[in-house]
Amino acid sequence: MTNYFSSDFKLGILGGGQLGKMLLYETRKYDIQTLVLDPSAEAPSRIACDSFTQGDLMDYETVLEFGRKADVLTFEIETVNVEALEKLEQEGIKVYPSPKTLKKIQDKGVQKSFYADHAIPTAPFSKFASKDALLRCFQKGDFQFPFVWKSTTGGYDGKGVAVVRDQAALEALEDTPCIAEDLIPFKNELAVIVARSPSGEVKTFPVVEMEFHPEANQVEYVICPARIEPSVAEKARKLAEKVSERFEHVGLLAVEMFQTEDDRVLVNEVAPRPHNSGHYSIEAGFTNQFEQHLRAILDLPLGNTDSKVGGVMVNLVGDEGYTGNVIYENIEEIMKFKGVTPHIYGKKITRPFRKMGHVTIVAEDLSEARRTAEKVKKTIRVIGSEKINS
Amino acid sequence: MTNYFSSDFKLGILGGGQLGKMLLYETRKYDIQTLVLDPSAEAPSRIACDSFTQGDLMDYETVLEFGRKADVLTFEIETVNVEALEKLEQEGIKVYPSPKTLKKIQDKGVQKSFYADHAIPTAPFSKFASKDALLRCFQKGDFQFPFVWKSTTGGYDGKGVAVVRDQAALEALEDTPCIAEDLIPFKNELAVIVARSPSGEVKTFPVVEMEFHPEANQVEYVICPARIEPSVAEKARKLAEKVSERFEHVGLLAVEMFQTEDDRVLVNEVAPRPHNSGHYSIEAGFTNQFEQHLRAILDLPLGNTDSKVGGVMVNLVGDEGYTGNVIYENIEEIMKFKGVTPHIYGKKITRPFRKMGHVTIVAEDLSEARRTAEKVKKTIRVIGSEKINS
Repeated sequence: MTNYFSSDFKLGILGGGQLGKMLLYETRKYDIQTLVLDPSAEAPSRIACDSFTQGDLMDYETVLEFGRKADVLTFEIETVNVEALEKLEQEGIKVYPSPKTLKKIQDKGVQKSFYADHAIPTAPFSKFASKDALLRCFQKGDFQFPFVWKSTTGGYDGKGVAVVRDQAALEALEDTPCIAEDLIPFKNELAVIVARSPSGEVKTFPVVEMEFHPEANQVEYVICPARIEPSVAEKARKLAEKVSERFEHVGLLAVEMFQTEDDRVLVNEVAPRPHNSGHYSIEAGFTNQFEQHLRAILDLPLGNTDSKVGGVMVNLVGDEGYTGNVIYENIEEIMKFKGVTPHIYGKKITRPFRKMGHVTIVAEDLSEARRTAEKVKKTIRVIGSEKINS
Repeated sequence: MTNYFSSDFKLGILGGGQLGKMLLYETRKYDIQTLVLDPSAEAPSRIACDSFTQGDLMDYETVLEFGRKADVLTFEIETVNVEALEKLEQEGIKVYPSPKTLKKIQDKGVQKSFYADHAIPTAPFSKFASKDALLRCFQKGDFQFPFVWKSTTGGYDGKGVAVVRDQAALEALEDTPCIAEDLIPFKNELAVIVARSPSGEVKTFPVVEMEFHPEANQVEYVICPARIEPSVAEKARKLAEKVSERFEHVGLLAVEMFQTEDDRVLVNEVAPRPHNSGHYSIEAGFTNQFEQHLRAILDLPLGNTDSKVGGVMVNLVGDEGYTGNVIYENIEEIMKFKGVTPHIYGKKITRPFRKMGHVTIVAEDLSEARRTAEKVKKTIRVIGSEKINS
């Protein structure tokens, strides 16, 4: 057994955003030395790591040089140079999740084909090398409006995804390799986080539910546990475990799923890392997702994934009317409500829809937490020092 | 309302030990800028603050110069230069707890007199300017064996306190200003943490119980909630609130108490800061003590002090047979148990009885947590790279 605690062992983390920052709370708790690589000098993870390197995550030499200083390497964002990870693995550095797994996930076209090859239920789709290829097939009548368009790479936080409902939306699409997917009418969007260690221990967090705003069609609340039939929850957990196993995944795998009108469960997509849908676990879970990721990649025993209390998570995104230095309007108001914890990621500049933080609301009674979450949502606003005239 | 979150506001923290380190988890969560002053270059808080200054906490000029860079100043250890804090307060810097309060607590003789003056029940005591003065009164028969000796200043983690049972122990006492206190036979040692904000909001954490090893007479477990009569718990909370109010305390005040054989509650001593007896709250509480301290000193609304689940805390202290580079023997074994979270403070070198970390065990059922705590205690051992021959 490697001695990780207060030792010379070094964990390298590619990416220094909020996920990395929250992972660092756990490395500090265990006193594990960390190295972080991120392109931004203002990265939220800059503080609290042992050594910060500013550099391009997609640059082969940068990742290679950085990775050689670590004993185990992980990432908090998928858009990293996978060839460098392969080389590092050959050199004997442990990389979790493995580059082999990452390659199956990084490209959404490859990811979708993987589901098809492994009999994992997912929405029907077609792959295209370019916008032109997509347009040709559309004109031939291979698929119709509405459909879901996804860029095969580089998608993140709603970027690289569009629901295409008309000719104008079709024309506005970027020219990139992409997939076109059937738009599935669904009752619920669900997510399950699976943790798997190199020795093969597996633990699965409860099913969470993404509640959408009825008009805006945006995720408003992540709710744990999901308010669904136990049989559907069981199906979702089993499916998530199957996905993790087929990917031979190590670390955390967040599996996003649709519950269809007829209670089938389809995999939408996965993220091979801690995930927005697991933030509730910091306050509500016996083991939070970041600690679990750390336990998994270090091959330590996995923690209990049960919840202590009901949890609801609200994202704090920049108001569309502002930019400049961020101001969390009425944050002291929401701190008066019972069971409310704000998490501020540390980005100094707000922008419309930028993910600036999140708020977790916990209570014994989930419906109480849900009611408080609504009050939180109506009270706090992420504004900035400069108004945007629109 | 000051804008603390992702702003230019700066919190100064005197002391960079484990309490400061755990406070920094919360400043990071809120993205509040921090400055830390500590004499050790290896201080656990060195990482995760925005700016670290190495310097003497008892040196007037050092504390003054450091404090002038902060907007609000707090401390995680009482042995700081209080005259510098007074000067800083005069200059308009907010210091919480206030130097006025700290002066009533820092010197245990002054602290005990304060209890007497405010009709706060405490064990009978006498104050002495020197060892000689104590010996003269002892020889006159003013008090007898056994009694409790406490150095009036500098006591910490069991240092500066002794139960004097015989002539040999009496002769071994240090020559310092001190108090001699009646040794009170008690059923339980209890503690209550009170949070108070500058606007006067007060919240009190549940009563915890220190369970002693039946033979070694050492605290083995801190248990929340204490397994005592509700009427005694109520008495202890009320008394702790009175103590906090009389001290005009701002921030966290940990009040250690004795429950006597006849169910009276006496104040033993207080600590004006987060405290070992509140560590359980990180995993078990709706609001952990460090977040509560931060909320209090920044005059933010105080959080809910209830517990989500039962909690037991075990200190990890260095085994008496070892020194050198620390090794947490069997730590991966205890991580297999349900509801177990180790906290490693980050001290590289172990020494006999040095506080190196703690382990929290939580469960819905407190007696289950207590049983697991016993397994933890029997399994993990803090050893070092060098054996001490004794």
